[in-house]
Amino acid sequence: MTQFANVGLIGRLDNERAKYSVDRLIDFLTSRHLNVVIEARSAEIIDAAKRYPNITIATMDKLGTGCDLAIVIGGDGSLLSGARDLVQYNVPLLGVNRGRLGFLTDIVPEDIEQKVAEVLAGEFSSESRFLLDMSVERNGEIICTGDALNDVVLHPGEFIRMLEFELYVDDHFVTSQRSDGMIVSTPTGSTAYALSGGGPIMHPKLDALVLVPMNPHTLSSRPMVVAGDSVVRILVGDGNSAVPQVTCDGQTHDSVRGGDQIIIRKKPQRLQLIHPLNHNFYERCRSKLGWGGHLLDKS
Amino acid sequence: MTQFANVGLIGRLDNERAKYSVDRLIDFLTSRHLNVVIEARSAEIIDAAKRYPNITIATMDKLGTGCDLAIVIGGDGSLLSGARDLVQYNVPLLGVNRGRLGFLTDIVPEDIEQKVAEVLAGEFSSESRFLLDMSVERNGEIICTGDALNDVVLHPGEFIRMLEFELYVDDHFVTSQRSDGMIVSTPTGSTAYALSGGGPIMHPKLDALVLVPMNPHTLSSRPMVVAGDSVVRILVGDGNSAVPQVTCDGQTHDSVRGGDQIIIRKKPQRLQLIHPLNHNFYERCRSKLGWGGHLLDKS
Amino acid sequence: MTQFANVGLIGRLDNERAKYSVDRLIDFLTSRHLNVVIEARSAEIIDAAKRYPNITIATMDKLGTGCDLAIVIGGDGSLLSGARDLVQYNVPLLGVNRGRLGFLTDIVPEDIEQKVAEVLAGEFSSESRFLLDMSVERNGEIICTGDALNDVVLHPGEFIRMLEFELYVDDHFVTSQRSDGMIVSTPTGSTAYALSGGGPIMHPKLDALVLVPMNPHTLSSRPMVVAGDSVVRILVGDGNSAVPQVTCDGQTHDSVRGGDQIIIRKKPQRLQLIHPLNHNFYERCRSKLGWGGHLLDKS
Amino acid sequence: MTQFANVGLIGRLDNERAKYSVDRLIDFLTSRHLNVVIEARSAEIIDAAKRYPNITIATMDKLGTGCDLAIVIGGDGSLLSGARDLVQYNVPLLGVNRGRLGFLTDIVPEDIEQKVAEVLAGEFSSESRFLLDMSVERNGEIICTGDALNDVVLHPGEFIRMLEFELYVDDHFVTSQRSDGMIVSTPTGSTAYALSGGGPIMHPKLDALVLVPMNPHTLSSRPMVVAGDSVVRILVGDGNSAVPQVTCDGQTHDSVRGGDQIIIRKKPQRLQLIHPLNHNFYERCRSKLGWGGHLLDKS
Repeated sequence: MTQFANVGLIGRLDNERAKYSVDRLIDFLTSRHLNVVIEARSAEIIDAAKRYPNITIATMDKLGTGCDLAIVIGGDGSLLSGARDLVQYNVPLLGVNRGRLGFLTDIVPEDIEQKVAEVLAGEFSSESRFLLDMSVERNGEIICTGDALNDVVLHPGEFIRMLEFELYVDDHFVTSQRSDGMIVSTPTGSTAYALSGGGPIMHPKLDALVLVPMNPHTLSSRPMVVAGDSVVRILVGDGNSAVPQVTCDGQTHDSVRGGDQIIIRKKPQRLQLIHPLNHNFYERCRSKLGWGGHLLDKS
Repeated sequence: MTQFANVGLIGRLDNERAKYSVDRLIDFLTSRHLNVVIEARSAEIIDAAKRYPNITIATMDKLGTGCDLAIVIGGDGSLLSGARDLVQYNVPLLGVNRGRLGFLTDIVPEDIEQKVAEVLAGEFSSESRFLLDMSVERNGEIICTGDALNDVVLHPGEFIRMLEFELYVDDHFVTSQRSDGMIVSTPTGSTAYALSGGGPIMHPKLDALVLVPMNPHTLSSRPMVVAGDSVVRILVGDGNSAVPQVTCDGQTHDSVRGGDQIIIRKKPQRLQLIHPLNHNFYERCRSKLGWGGHLLDKS
Repeated sequence: MTQFANVGLIGRLDNERAKYSVDRLIDFLTSRHLNVVIEARSAEIIDAAKRYPNITIATMDKLGTGCDLAIVIGGDGSLLSGARDLVQYNVPLLGVNRGRLGFLTDIVPEDIEQKVAEVLAGEFSSESRFLLDMSVERNGEIICTGDALNDVVLHPGEFIRMLEFELYVDDHFVTSQRSDGMIVSTPTGSTAYALSGGGPIMHPKLDALVLVPMNPHTLSSRPMVVAGDSVVRILVGDGNSAVPQVTCDGQTHDSVRGGDQIIIRKKPQRLQLIHPLNHNFYERCRSKLGWGGHLLDKS
Repeated sequence: MTQFANVGLIGRLDNERAKYSVDRLIDFLTSRHLNVVIEARSAEIIDAAKRYPNITIATMDKLGTGCDLAIVIGGDGSLLSGARDLVQYNVPLLGVNRGRLGFLTDIVPEDIEQKVAEVLAGEFSSESRFLLDMSVERNGEIICTGDALNDVVLHPGEFIRMLEFELYVDDHFVTSQRSDGMIVSTPTGSTAYALSGGGPIMHPKLDALVLVPMNPHTLSSRPMVVAGDSVVRILVGDGNSAVPQVTCDGQTHDSVRGGDQIIIRKKPQRLQLIHPLNHNFYERCRSKLGWGGHLLDKS
């Protein structure tokens, strides 16, 4: 018996490799007599209504409330999107990559049956990750909001070299900056865009945020790590001639303008990420970043 | 009345500016009828036995057990040394710089009387900083130990490009590395050597360590931030033809060799750092790193 | 007598400080009985037709063909724009900053009369800088072109993390890259945007280009310096879902799309930059970048 | 017939893989009836006097004057050493690696016969690389000199964070610096230690030097590229409490002290490096640095 009797499937990538994995997963889960639910948009992609007439198709909302486990098929990007959609329902997520392992997706297609069987049998580790809550305030009103598992990025939009802003942490003024913007990243996001921008790698268990300046005019600007419960506030300057953008996980986009305040803080709800037992963060760093393995001549 | 009736003075820099500040401080404290104790080596430098015959001269040990407050006169380096000496006695430290403000020293000579008076009157903030405990293990025996408020650094000693080591965090293998060594830094040290090596700035309140590779052969090596209670273990490789060194705060030095393990963890005792009330970490970043102040056109 | 009998003035910044400097310069040059020509748009800003009825107002084209010297009043940005406009006419440029010294502008307002008098008296050094010629090829046709004294930048436009391209140098394939784009900079531009992006400083006399990847996905990507007469070709990938932009000197903008080739090479015409005699590139680095001056204890 | 009738062999690495390659090369060259000369120290390692009694054993000096081609078996380090030894004799160098390809060594053991046969048949490209001439001046006298194909490095020797120096280029004062030293690298060395230190990659044909500061105290310090014929002068400060070292190619070491001047300039003699015809610098970057190959979806 498994604690995961109701399993939701999300697989929105419209390519052969992803669809193949979704099919394989459906076959496996139905053979186990589990209650399978396919997210509506994912169902369209594989024509599930016709091909799997007996399987429930549901909105993300229904899937979130009705499932004990959600399996996301796709790359790290698919899992980011799934995490933002489902964090409010407190349903644990398991990621199946359509190609090689990602930082967030732990199962490759060829291992689907074996690894998912292990998870269903209770052989897994569960890890809690925090997300960011982003809101933009204009004249005292919140004009837009967003969630991010990886990062919130302020960037100049169409034109480069145009941003000026003030940075506050917990209402302390930190600095003003002329740059191409700033990445505010969780530990989860520290191996993604923030890393390309020169930020440090943060262990997933760390309760911290990193603030990474992008192409700053002041050469002594550096990435800064602050406590996870910090409230980060960015006041967009008036001198910006373009339309700056705020982007969550590289996937949602909102325009801001001079005088707007972008407020970023930890979300109260947390994501439960399910890993097969052999999951190891440092091993993932070695394989994805090309770090060295054991020395041959070690004593 | 003050909570600091017994005040220890430490000022080991043998230059005019530092000696001037020590004298000024002695005059001020004795005028307040406080019990002043001068650390023995500092006393020699200003010839205290002759010039201040009524003032107690004591070993660092006696000063630590007998004082409610220790004032260190010098640069950040003097405070690092004082912190390592006194952390075991749980006596709070206040830093007076002989020149401009440091990241650890909050009072400049011209403000001595005013700022110290404020501190004595209870107008101060107190901040707790953690130190690192470093030990080197060879064949299962600990062959040397050290403390650090800023950082523990493994470096190649006389010759460059010679180090090879394996890195473990909490007994998980992280990576092997060929490089010029590694900086393991506290948040306190993150604005010092680790910053020159490309590490992020960490807020002093953060409970974390940063591991900064120095000139790594693998270009995807990056600074890594781990939880403050992590145990970092570096296994020195056999292939190193020179004599690598382990250095604490840039001030103490021990040689290691292939097969040695350097173990670094948080010290159980913490340092109490006393600040005048206007102390502000971000202001110090702006003034010492040249970061921008408020935008003129802010709304 | 001066070799610069016909002097063109360009000052397009519409602020008090810039206009003050233009007026002061007009007064000085007319007092010397020189033939002064004001560029048309600059003339509008100071209302020259009314205020200086006896002074010639001319298009940039006429100014370029008719003047022996062009003085640009503004910041480094104004000089970049002036350089691109005038490089084809082979007229030397002298830069007057409206505030503090720039890397390209050598005279501050308070020194206008003295420094310009020196230049007119032949007391100057002349330096030759090369510009870049950029063209975008689509299906074998050139669809747009541009010039740059500092840099040509390919960037993702509205959305970040979207670019994929192949890089060729002199028809040798170098690499493909997923990143936020690439900066191709002259030595002149190496102290501007390329420096913020992590590129090296190149001495102005160096005959070289630097290619700086922006937030590259591959962590071993590094700035690369190639010979000044290299032909750089960037083939934009098909997978880019946004509209990438090519920007010259941060001032001109063109959209590109998958399959387009951006070709960047040295312009045959060179810019003559006029400096007062005390001009010193390294001094400018020290003052603008905060580098250290002479050691006090040097022997 | 070949232009390389007299071939010198240098293989000083005392391990099985290197010795195997030397043997294989001797067999191949003697089968071609070429005049083979083994360098004396290399000969000892393979016991050549006994095993190859008919082959000439010679000092490096004799080998340099008597050979038309020198083949170095080993890694890039062996070729660096061979280059410094032989540059004065103007004999071209060909590198055979004992393992995988290096930036300087173009032939792997399994291809020895084929690739060397091609070179002997005239199917090769020849490339000219410059070396650095380093000398240390004390009180007006030169106290030591050295050559470097990759780099000259000033570093603190035993203790870190101890160096202070002034930098001059072509007798212009550039800056003073507190750091762990400086790397002065050729284009050849730009993919070696200088790259680990944050320097740019320079194309081998570029006539330039790069100066890379190591862990500089001033955060706005950056790598600087200057013309290849620049004279770089480093004046060691008096305040250094340790014994700084000057190292050439990481292989030769000299101590310096306060007041010493380290003078680095291009050597008049150049090295001829022989490559098989398929040699490609950018391919080497891709394979050794993990850069991306062609995009799949390129048009």
